[in-house]
Amino acid sequence: MTPPEILISEVGPRDGLQSVQATMPTADKLRWIDALVAAGLREIEVGSFVPARLLPQMADVAEVVRHALTHPGITVMALAPNLRGAEAALAAGVHKVTLPVSASAAHSLANVRKTREAMVEEVRAVAQLRDAQAPGVLVEVGLSTAFGCTIQGTVAEDDVIWLAGLCAEAGADEVGLSDTTGMANPAQVRRLFTRLRAELGAKAGAAHMHNTRGLGLANCLAAYDVGVRTFDASLGGLGGCPYAPGASGNVVTEDLVFMFEAMDITTGVDLERLMAARAPLQAGLPGEPIYGMTPEAGLPKGWTKA
Amino acid sequence: MTPPEILISEVGPRDGLQSVQATMPTADKLRWIDALVAAGLREIEVGSFVPARLLPQMADVAEVVRHALTHPGITVMALAPNLRGAEAALAAGVHKVTLPVSASAAHSLANVRKTREAMVEEVRAVAQLRDAQAPGVLVEVGLSTAFGCTIQGTVAEDDVIWLAGLCAEAGADEVGLSDTTGMANPAQVRRLFTRLRAELGAKAGAAHMHNTRGLGLANCLAAYDVGVRTFDASLGGLGGCPYAPGASGNVVTEDLVFMFEAMDITTGVDLERLMAARAPLQAGLPGEPIYGMTPEAGLPKGWTKA
Repeated sequence: MTPPEILISEVGPRDGLQSVQATMPTADKLRWIDALVAAGLREIEVGSFVPARLLPQMADVAEVVRHALTHPGITVMALAPNLRGAEAALAAGVHKVTLPVSASAAHSLANVRKTREAMVEEVRAVAQLRDAQAPGVLVEVGLSTAFGCTIQGTVAEDDVIWLAGLCAEAGADEVGLSDTTGMANPAQVRRLFTRLRAELGAKAGAAHMHNTRGLGLANCLAAYDVGVRTFDASLGGLGGCPYAPGASGNVVTEDLVFMFEAMDITTGVDLERLMAARAPLQAGLPGEPIYGMTPEAGLPKGWTKA
Repeated sequence: MTPPEILISEVGPRDGLQSVQATMPTADKLRWIDALVAAGLREIEVGSFVPARLLPQMADVAEVVRHALTHPGITVMALAPNLRGAEAALAAGVHKVTLPVSASAAHSLANVRKTREAMVEEVRAVAQLRDAQAPGVLVEVGLSTAFGCTIQGTVAEDDVIWLAGLCAEAGADEVGLSDTTGMANPAQVRRLFTRLRAELGAKAGAAHMHNTRGLGLANCLAAYDVGVRTFDASLGGLGGCPYAPGASGNVVTEDLVFMFEAMDITTGVDLERLMAARAPLQAGLPGEPIYGMTPEAGLPKGWTKA
């Protein structure tokens, strides 16, 4: 098999599971992660280091990390909203910790009750902790609301690039851009990732696109066109209907992999096995709807990709 | 308002209505078309000239054409599967007649019981009839299954370009490419439309994309990138769920217009009025599901496009 040209970063076990009401039992989480690994996914965001009273769905995150670490060759990632969460994530042994920083000043205050500048200092503290305690671990920042904000509306592109630069300077290894609100369009995606890559070089990170208004895959294509090679996605679009409003609306992993593989851009992911990974997801969250047009339509006649 | 840079060709009243079981009453069709015109759509495929015993939904097509012609400035288009249908379409006074020609040899035999070469002769006959009787009318060919076929699987790109050349030589004014089966991907779309435009020049026509596997908008973006400026779409994705299998899966007009307008590519279409055109559609087809992610999510905060 051709070595993968792009990296699909599966965020379902974190982004998806923390967006649904039900809590998936730990054993089911582990089986699901095993199935994701078996499908060829090489980076998985397995959970969130947040207080269990706030997000009971993530109470077992350390155990989930421990299990994920038994799979050789994959990058085990977890979200931490602050230094305390990052301490726990590093203690659990993650390979990569990701911090959300809002590009929108209004969203930052509403979401984490901190200014954007205060969040940059949090990133700096996490990077310093990492340097001291776990120098091999990567610190990633996902710049949320980078393409627009439901509170303040437009987010200036200069603000996004300024903040990305501050995060990189504070010690982040990768800074990605997230379309938290489903407001991105392909022209904007091309402009912003082009600037991000010019500004940050190798530290320019993933495209995290939502499908709120149906543009998720078009925006991923646009990001690919300007050199992005890491794409976040969620199996089954878990965490809310990606085809409806008020939902997390993550790009569906199955559809994203289908698009790139159909284009002969290798992902390292086996689509049949990826679709098989829907079963343990559904088993662990009975009754929770999952989505995906490629799973519903099936692979086209003559499909031969690994 | 900036003059439109692209043309959205609304196919719902033909492609959509002939794909649903119910027959929309004529008065409702006329109200719906009026609403589409009011939204700024400048080309509408209003019906199909086929025997009423085969498609009772289209029995009133001549009356619908007559009404559509009362709107100044729009292009009234109808489908004709053969010379007889084209005669009726020309007699009704359409501005443009569109003929479906299968790029797949197997699909051609299954669909119209004619070889592809025989269909090219049908195109020639229609073009000659037009020359004799209605020299201002445009003859369009939509090359169906141009990106893959559910019967024969792959369709050779050389076949598509060869057939497009034959159709143009036979007198077609425009030859577009249709992803009838939802098998297209953006790389293939770019390759084929690039070749089509090199081969046919100004006769290279519309992109008719389906959303069967979620790639509809990404494929339209890809077509735009290589110079395509006319895009077929269906209001509400009428004619079957564009997010499910076994359906016509037309690209949803509302989502397509949203994408281009968000990119500052002018369509001439007012999105608010376009969404208002869903009401007469639903009134005329009670209980028929319609789709669209932008209508469901609503326009983003701060949306100011005309």
